[in-house]
Amino acid sequence: MAQAAHAAARVPTSAIDERIDGALQHLRNPKVQAGVVLGSHARRAMSEFLHGRDFVEIPPVIVAPVTDPLNHPVSDPRVDYYGHDFQLTRSMIFHKQLATLAFEKVFCFSPNLRFEPLDRSGTGRHLVEFTQMDLEVRDAGRDDIMRLVEEMLTSVVSTVRSRAAPILQELGRTLPPISSRLRRVRYEDAQKEFGPSFELELSRRAKEPFWIIDIPLLEREFYDREDPKHPGFLLDMDLIYPEGYGEAISGGEREHELGRILERIRAKGQTPDEFRWYVEAARQGLPPSCGFGIGIERLSRWLGGLRTVEETTLFPKRIGAWSL
Amino acid sequence: MAQAAHAAARVPTSAIDERIDGALQHLRNPKVQAGVVLGSHARRAMSEFLHGRDFVEIPPVIVAPVTDPLNHPVSDPRVDYYGHDFQLTRSMIFHKQLATLAFEKVFCFSPNLRFEPLDRSGTGRHLVEFTQMDLEVRDAGRDDIMRLVEEMLTSVVSTVRSRAAPILQELGRTLPPISSRLRRVRYEDAQKEFGPSFELELSRRAKEPFWIIDIPLLEREFYDREDPKHPGFLLDMDLIYPEGYGEAISGGEREHELGRILERIRAKGQTPDEFRWYVEAARQGLPPSCGFGIGIERLSRWLGGLRTVEETTLFPKRIGAWSL
Repeated sequence: MAQAAHAAARVPTSAIDERIDGALQHLRNPKVQAGVVLGSHARRAMSEFLHGRDFVEIPPVIVAPVTDPLNHPVSDPRVDYYGHDFQLTRSMIFHKQLATLAFEKVFCFSPNLRFEPLDRSGTGRHLVEFTQMDLEVRDAGRDDIMRLVEEMLTSVVSTVRSRAAPILQELGRTLPPISSRLRRVRYEDAQKEFGPSFELELSRRAKEPFWIIDIPLLEREFYDREDPKHPGFLLDMDLIYPEGYGEAISGGEREHELGRILERIRAKGQTPDEFRWYVEAARQGLPPSCGFGIGIERLSRWLGGLRTVEETTLFPKRIGAWSL
Repeated sequence: MAQAAHAAARVPTSAIDERIDGALQHLRNPKVQAGVVLGSHARRAMSEFLHGRDFVEIPPVIVAPVTDPLNHPVSDPRVDYYGHDFQLTRSMIFHKQLATLAFEKVFCFSPNLRFEPLDRSGTGRHLVEFTQMDLEVRDAGRDDIMRLVEEMLTSVVSTVRSRAAPILQELGRTLPPISSRLRRVRYEDAQKEFGPSFELELSRRAKEPFWIIDIPLLEREFYDREDPKHPGFLLDMDLIYPEGYGEAISGGEREHELGRILERIRAKGQTPDEFRWYVEAARQGLPPSCGFGIGIERLSRWLGGLRTVEETTLFPKRIGAWSL
């Protein structure tokens, strides 16, 4: 850390000028401004939709003793919290599951920090810092939440279409219509037909968002619930944007019984000690629940038909590169 | 850091049980749940008010090369951002000022992390992690923003009073009425009459929120604008809650000319190098602006007449103590 500080102190002023030039050019870019305004409309529309259905908006959590392990490797910077070794939030999965002990329906505009590996820097879909609208409902099943998503998305799209009409026109963007019930594709069927990159392939061919369901157990984190009627597969679902924009939403029913949680942690080659605070909470009892997270920047990108998620935020945190 | 991890790993299970018990008892506490619901209503009401006035809601910033220096000592954990030495956001002051290059009116529900010294742990008003609704308006003056705050607060209070009536009743809370124009008290007059703890003294005597204006230069950060007509005093303003609840809002016009910024940094005994990215941006030109920040947890506490800000969040981050 001291080394990094030293390195930064040695950057000459002209190099700083260039970076600042780049950062200021970015936030003055009309396309970026349009993307940010679409994100603003999306936040507003989601807030209206969820508050209108009596969800409780809970405060975000930024540092904590436990966060989402994720299913792919990210680096894990630690913060010294008065002598305790804390993580930065990668998602609020555990906290929102705990929150269902307090409220039936919760959501949060939750900033996530994911120090992604460098090979994800050119995808157009990844930022180190982004906002996930994270939601969880106690005693809900997957079908309930899929309906909720379909209604929310319909509402967001129609609201943005009317309120942000001039922006969409400026961007030359015509948002595709959305059916009230979206198509469901089984993971294995899609994989069989389109091979390993089926998600992107299907996304490119699609005209409206669609679901991928019944994802194999080891493809996801331990906390997504295994289907008791279909062992080896999860009661979860991804929503995929059409037109090649890729993943929109990841969600599912949750494991909530201690025995199942411990078994699933071990099946991933992880140890209960890595998630001790969550495991201890589960030991005291968690209710069944289902929920999802939707990235605001990806949603804004799709709404605007933009090239990258960087165009939806004034201060994009780029993978591997200094960012304001 | 490795040492902290080691210390945490040695905590026996029974000690974890106790902490988890405490954390779960907290989020099951009906008073806490009422406080969180009030916060949810407050976020909703603010969002409606500001979106209704065409503010752009910008995404929060959590890690960055520069953050608010604040006017009191807090510890400053660093995060290694791909080899760069980044800070955790203490407030979005610099980023929102830059954002006025893109938009006339911006706001953000901005999570702030402030590792406060231990002597603030018992105030009932401080959390390590909290949300500040941070707002900035290009080319606005202090009077414009004071009016905006008065209108926003009136709107939030009347909305919460009607939508959260059962919660307020449950808490036995009668919210005091609010005048459309709030009283203004000059800092020096207040200090002369009530001594060094005038803020709390005035807060205890007040029946509705009131302003403190014309704060002496060295009492605040370098970025608040000095009054050209009244050297040594700032064009800023604090809003104070009545009934002893203390500070609600801190705001002001901003220094935006490079020469003034450099002078003010030096007057604080700080160096431009500590704020180099901000100083470089100012070198390229910043517009005049005015804005403020309001803490959601303190607002929720006052709305509910609660004992502490901890009662307004499910996962309070306590100063000096392990927190979920």
